[in-house]
Amino acid sequence: MANTDAVSVRVFSLNCWGIHYLSKHCPQRYAMIGEMLSKEEHDVVLLQEVWSEKDYLSLKKKLASSHPHSHYFKSGVIGSGLAIFSKHRIHDTFVYRYSLNGYPYMAHHGDWFGGKAVGMAVLSIGSLTANVYVTHLHAEYCRDKDSYLPHRVVQAWELQQFIRHTSAGADVVILGGDLNMHPQDLGNRLLRTYTGLKDSYLETPKFEGCDEGLTLIADNPFISKKELGPFEKGIRIDYILFKGSPKTDISCDFMCTTKGSVPDHPFPYSDHEALTAELRLKTHTPSDTGSGSGSQSKKQDSPAEKVAELVDIVTEARTEVKVGLHCAEGMRYTAARTGVMGFALLILELAIAAVPWLALGAEQPFPRTSFYLLAALCFAILLTTSLLYIFYTMELKSLQGAEDQMRLAVGSLQEKLRGFPLAQQYNPQRRPPEGQEPSAFDPEE
Amino acid sequence: MANTDAVSVRVFSLNCWGIHYLSKHCPQRYAMIGEMLSKEEHDVVLLQEVWSEKDYLSLKKKLASSHPHSHYFKSGVIGSGLAIFSKHRIHDTFVYRYSLNGYPYMAHHGDWFGGKAVGMAVLSIGSLTANVYVTHLHAEYCRDKDSYLPHRVVQAWELQQFIRHTSAGADVVILGGDLNMHPQDLGNRLLRTYTGLKDSYLETPKFEGCDEGLTLIADNPFISKKELGPFEKGIRIDYILFKGSPKTDISCDFMCTTKGSVPDHPFPYSDHEALTAELRLKTHTPSDTGSGSGSQSKKQDSPAEKVAELVDIVTEARTEVKVGLHCAEGMRYTAARTGVMGFALLILELAIAAVPWLALGAEQPFPRTSFYLLAALCFAILLTTSLLYIFYTMELKSLQGAEDQMRLAVGSLQEKLRGFPLAQQYNPQRRPPEGQEPSAFDPEE
Repeated sequence: MANTDAVSVRVFSLNCWGIHYLSKHCPQRYAMIGEMLSKEEHDVVLLQEVWSEKDYLSLKKKLASSHPHSHYFKSGVIGSGLAIFSKHRIHDTFVYRYSLNGYPYMAHHGDWFGGKAVGMAVLSIGSLTANVYVTHLHAEYCRDKDSYLPHRVVQAWELQQFIRHTSAGADVVILGGDLNMHPQDLGNRLLRTYTGLKDSYLETPKFEGCDEGLTLIADNPFISKKELGPFEKGIRIDYILFKGSPKTDISCDFMCTTKGSVPDHPFPYSDHEALTAELRLKTHTPSDTGSGSGSQSKKQDSPAEKVAELVDIVTEARTEVKVGLHCAEGMRYTAARTGVMGFALLILELAIAAVPWLALGAEQPFPRTSFYLLAALCFAILLTTSLLYIFYTMELKSLQGAEDQMRLAVGSLQEKLRGFPLAQQYNPQRRPPEGQEPSAFDPEE
Repeated sequence: MANTDAVSVRVFSLNCWGIHYLSKHCPQRYAMIGEMLSKEEHDVVLLQEVWSEKDYLSLKKKLASSHPHSHYFKSGVIGSGLAIFSKHRIHDTFVYRYSLNGYPYMAHHGDWFGGKAVGMAVLSIGSLTANVYVTHLHAEYCRDKDSYLPHRVVQAWELQQFIRHTSAGADVVILGGDLNMHPQDLGNRLLRTYTGLKDSYLETPKFEGCDEGLTLIADNPFISKKELGPFEKGIRIDYILFKGSPKTDISCDFMCTTKGSVPDHPFPYSDHEALTAELRLKTHTPSDTGSGSGSQSKKQDSPAEKVAELVDIVTEARTEVKVGLHCAEGMRYTAARTGVMGFALLILELAIAAVPWLALGAEQPFPRTSFYLLAALCFAILLTTSLLYIFYTMELKSLQGAEDQMRLAVGSLQEKLRGFPLAQQYNPQRRPPEGQEPSAFDPEE
């Protein structure tokens, strides 16, 4: 089965900004996108923010001959907005919904309703199995005071977990999407260092497109200067990442982005720039394949510096999650306190109304309108704070869960650093050295 | 690294029924469980329904020397209730939350609040990597009219996806938990056939315990006869499943269950029986390992009958999901209709109150108390139906997502059956035969 011929795979990624009635020229832009995709015939097309299933279905119809295989990832209230179109047979799909994704009451930010997720499709490209992932992380609305940072870090954590654990059987791994993170942001480092995924923009010998590979640029007519803040020219937050396996080498031959406009059209495809990467896959001869299978065994081969770097990054992520935990605890406490106050107010009101009535048997002295309005207010407070309390409890659980996993990961990485062999010899009588091992795994830490 | 010596691994699974104040003798039973576990020293302990983290932490303390490694999987409002204790180092953990899990308003059933999930832990057992999974699916409250069946089928679908996709790098896969499904139930067949997991009870040459391996039995003092319905003696819904890999053989030497009582104690550990399986792992010599790595490649080797069986099972599951879809659509429609009626009532009330007031400038003729009560009722209806509408929309998305994936899977399996090679030769000009391929992938189907 194995062949040594190189295979070229063209991957496309675009955040389509497909919010009907809200984002500008939505139907026209979809028409442009469909036209371009059917002409360009990329091997794999990864789209984000395709919020309406109708738009997906019309693209599917338009691309029926160029991309016969496709999948739309459903999740949340509105959907994940993620879609994949492929020339190559899609054998299997799987979706992982991030446990944290903003707040439902921040409706104007809308992320919560989108049900952000990572979608995976297992493709056959020639004789190779390719795991292709598409995702869209929580947006960053204010970089200086980013209240969603812990959520995005946990999403990056779950994304790297999902890719690492599901890609062991794959020959090639490709991830495309809008990560909403700058190249050196914590979540991005976490993702790339842990999974070993490489950035097409940094790897390609030949690049055409915006300076520094920016994907959200000031020259795009849909972008306001204000949005970009201190980054006058723009920011790079959309990526195509890739990695090979012991069986397969992968490299990037060429990469390009759009530059804020489309020839012969009055406006660009989206507020984000579109990315295209030409990847080259090369299968080893069968004799080279014995060394291991996938990321888990690959990790064992990584040098100590990489593990040390990983420990630092995970520790940094853990700190960020702790900040989020602290914040969520505060919010939950506030919700609980407000709820108790609403309840106390209700009791007080009932007492004020009931006492004269019971004692004197007289007409209700409390003005009726005020009485009902106040009671309605109390009930509204109680209901809202109860819902918020439940929501914050779920947020806390997710943050605690991520923090637990990070602590475990740091412990495991540190052990590796200390030079213990990863796979210990089996010995049922073995006990850990007293007072040394457990510290890294102590939940009370 | 490879050795041909067999390694014995003892796995324990128990649904702890740990609902404080609701389940009987909870603290005493946890004390019994802790005592037994620290004495028995199983290699891997998989617990379900450990709803309180305090109980987990006290078990952790008690088992610090016998099981130095442990993890508690957090999720949802209350938690997933899943815990793992291990003699062997846990390197990594991951949790997948099922997209469907009952209804929040069915509070007396409580499943929704539990945030059911599947937890995964990557263990080193000797030189082998073992992926250990623990899960607890939605309970079955009424077998004849099981309104949760589509939810449980989707959970089983997601469980098999999760295990299949995350276990490609593992030498050994072990799953323990309360599946809430009888041995021949649809979800159980789906899980076992798709993943290739084997049932310890069916595989073991030596068994001690309840007749037919039952795990929820009439002889257990915490079980009421009524609960078991037509299954007078009991049902088998807890399992320890396992599979090996091309590198490792696995078999079950011995299995046992408790029998509704514990010697020298007035009551059993739980309302479920505890399961123990002694598994034997055997590594092949390195020369045998070339054949492939994990489930994806294993699937290719499976005979046509198995694929045909799988097509039947997935088709059956798809039908069940469609029933759920139909039902959820009906519920959403009812919620929308009720909401519209509430809104109409509010408008009507305002009109009745406003018209005479506007026209005659007279005193409000509508009795104030009734006015406010009716308005409050309308608002309550509007709020409730809005929340329900959002919830049913999410349910629909999840059901549709699972149905899409199942359709894709059936298409992929049918192609395999038709004798096409799974991994096609790469040819960028290839088009699918008109009118043949797309039918299996048509979302309008």
